[in-house]
Amino acid sequence: MNLFESLEETLEKYIPLDELKEVRRILFGEGTKMLELPQCAQEAARQRDFQLLGCQFGAAREQLRPPHTIRVGLVQNAVVLPTSAPIMDQIDALHRRIGDIVEVAAMCGVNIVCFQEAWTMPFAFCTREKVPWTEFAESAEEGHTTRFCQKLAEKYNMVVVSPILERDESHGATLWNTAVVVSNSGRVLGKSRKNHIPRVGDFNESTYYMEGDTGHRVFQTQFGRIAVNICYGRHHPLNWLMYSVNSAEIIFNPSATIGGLSEPMWPIEARNAAIANHCFTCAINRIGTEHFESEFTSGDGKKAHHDFGHFYGSSYVAAPDGSRSPGLSRTRDGLLVAELDLNLNRQISDKWGFKMTGRYDMYAKELAEAVNENFTPNIVKE
Amino acid sequence: MNLFESLEETLEKYIPLDELKEVRRILFGEGTKMLELPQCAQEAARQRDFQLLGCQFGAAREQLRPPHTIRVGLVQNAVVLPTSAPIMDQIDALHRRIGDIVEVAAMCGVNIVCFQEAWTMPFAFCTREKVPWTEFAESAEEGHTTRFCQKLAEKYNMVVVSPILERDESHGATLWNTAVVVSNSGRVLGKSRKNHIPRVGDFNESTYYMEGDTGHRVFQTQFGRIAVNICYGRHHPLNWLMYSVNSAEIIFNPSATIGGLSEPMWPIEARNAAIANHCFTCAINRIGTEHFESEFTSGDGKKAHHDFGHFYGSSYVAAPDGSRSPGLSRTRDGLLVAELDLNLNRQISDKWGFKMTGRYDMYAKELAEAVNENFTPNIVKE
Repeated sequence: MNLFESLEETLEKYIPLDELKEVRRILFGEGTKMLELPQCAQEAARQRDFQLLGCQFGAAREQLRPPHTIRVGLVQNAVVLPTSAPIMDQIDALHRRIGDIVEVAAMCGVNIVCFQEAWTMPFAFCTREKVPWTEFAESAEEGHTTRFCQKLAEKYNMVVVSPILERDESHGATLWNTAVVVSNSGRVLGKSRKNHIPRVGDFNESTYYMEGDTGHRVFQTQFGRIAVNICYGRHHPLNWLMYSVNSAEIIFNPSATIGGLSEPMWPIEARNAAIANHCFTCAINRIGTEHFESEFTSGDGKKAHHDFGHFYGSSYVAAPDGSRSPGLSRTRDGLLVAELDLNLNRQISDKWGFKMTGRYDMYAKELAEAVNENFTPNIVKE
Repeated sequence: MNLFESLEETLEKYIPLDELKEVRRILFGEGTKMLELPQCAQEAARQRDFQLLGCQFGAAREQLRPPHTIRVGLVQNAVVLPTSAPIMDQIDALHRRIGDIVEVAAMCGVNIVCFQEAWTMPFAFCTREKVPWTEFAESAEEGHTTRFCQKLAEKYNMVVVSPILERDESHGATLWNTAVVVSNSGRVLGKSRKNHIPRVGDFNESTYYMEGDTGHRVFQTQFGRIAVNICYGRHHPLNWLMYSVNSAEIIFNPSATIGGLSEPMWPIEARNAAIANHCFTCAINRIGTEHFESEFTSGDGKKAHHDFGHFYGSSYVAAPDGSRSPGLSRTRDGLLVAELDLNLNRQISDKWGFKMTGRYDMYAKELAEAVNENFTPNIVKE
């Protein structure tokens, strides 16, 4: 199959420069500039066969605050080994791959890196098999993968956001879909669980774990206040809102989603959240097609099959002013390095005022009424 | 000034067909088809010098419900007379222009038509002058414009959504930014006021009227349940949500917004709302540049000037499946006729389940806490 590589590259290829400028302004906003990255990083990315892209979002100078410029790294990747390989081998191969990419992120001065959802495993929930996939689950605090991330964090002085399948031994050995946040000191700062679980297409995740119970906590890191809205939570504007109300400056959205299902929604949702909440959002999607030995059906009347579809990558950063970065490739591993001046958040908030004009008191009341069993919609009839 | 005419036309002009297909799928989704409109309507639109565009959004056949296919009309237009002309002349000229366009909408079988925000006047709030602009205000129930819309509604058996500057004589002769909904019977079904008022750029509307007090009512028409989220309310995801919670099937967003400020946000917000709320949304923006006799400043350190900027049109319809219609022109008056099968809403809701998985009880509680004066954001520190 000849996969379409990139929207941005296609536009550049065909549209004359003066009109391209207008197309880009309307599609992507005006805030994004390219970011020059070190030669050694570019060379390493070439050798290690992944796309490396840099961009920056500036802010106006202020008198009382210095610029708050930091760099985030978004990593998208395919699984390395076949899904039939021994589990520990699959995990270790992914650790090595991610280690290689994070080393390049460090060359690029990345302060906070985020990996894709359930990054240590294939996205096997489509199969509805418990065995062997639940063996990929690990302790958020003390698991093999968290220890690996702690080493990366310490070595590179980098905050690491590590979304894994969590085994919670303290609560009946239940499973969760969880992002572990490791401080650049190497200490585990905490964890944030996926708040909304899909029941759509082959996203049979509700078979494995429940809606998260960690609310909308935000993590104060040395580089800024971050939150993690995992995958399907991006479809829920209230989920983004509450992270923002709890003062997140950057909300990461580590995801796993496929072309046939969600692709026209992908450029919309995280970007809308950045606009509506005066913050940066980072949308990350895995790439590739993962094959499973056992066949499975999709509840759509079609024949049983062995893969979930094509994860289309296209990871991007969206800014509060409505602009966005180019997307990473639809087909290749990649690292997107984005330099953000977090001062932009408050500047845009002062300009547009969505928090000030938000009328949250009205909505708190209306929502509380709406969840009553006896709620009747307010419908005017002739 | 040579204004950029249309994103869609530029893409079509330059990108080869096989790649254009992929570009369109990613940018606009796959749900939209062109809708053939009658020759007489096309001819009338040509003669009356406005763009006429048709599109359709289908839905799967069901066993227990027949298709629920209706047609909406979105009207975008420039003001007709100079802003210095006598007020009654300006209003009457706009009535005539809209009358001409609605006649074509009727030829196209439109069941529900919606005009742009404050359609009977120039968007004069930029000036901060009370005189003469507040004279454009009319009674929602008995004003000259409402009577005009009632005649249209009866004549064409068409629901008319008429956003005006309202004079509320019953409450101290205050002003409101209000959409009047006229049933196809010709009776006024009710009104819906703008819930969020901007304080951004030259949108000095808070000088003239306050946040609406009509909540999130929905209007049951013969053709479907509709709601009106006026202009700046589109930046507030909760506003869309509550109309949807009150069971709107189509949410109109009559607007007035300019290129330098909001254009990269425009294709995002109404579309995100359609996705997040499993409903159709209709974003309508006026066109043209309106000149005012008195100069005014913009609070940006720049010199006084006589216009607000270019209203960029680009009106469009977004569907719950993530697809959208082409946008109308950035520079011309236009009528977008969209055929919608409203069965798509519940089909997409059953597929994606955002209402089911919305956890509104959690958000009602969190929002109620967040509006407390003593609320402390939930921030995890090392």
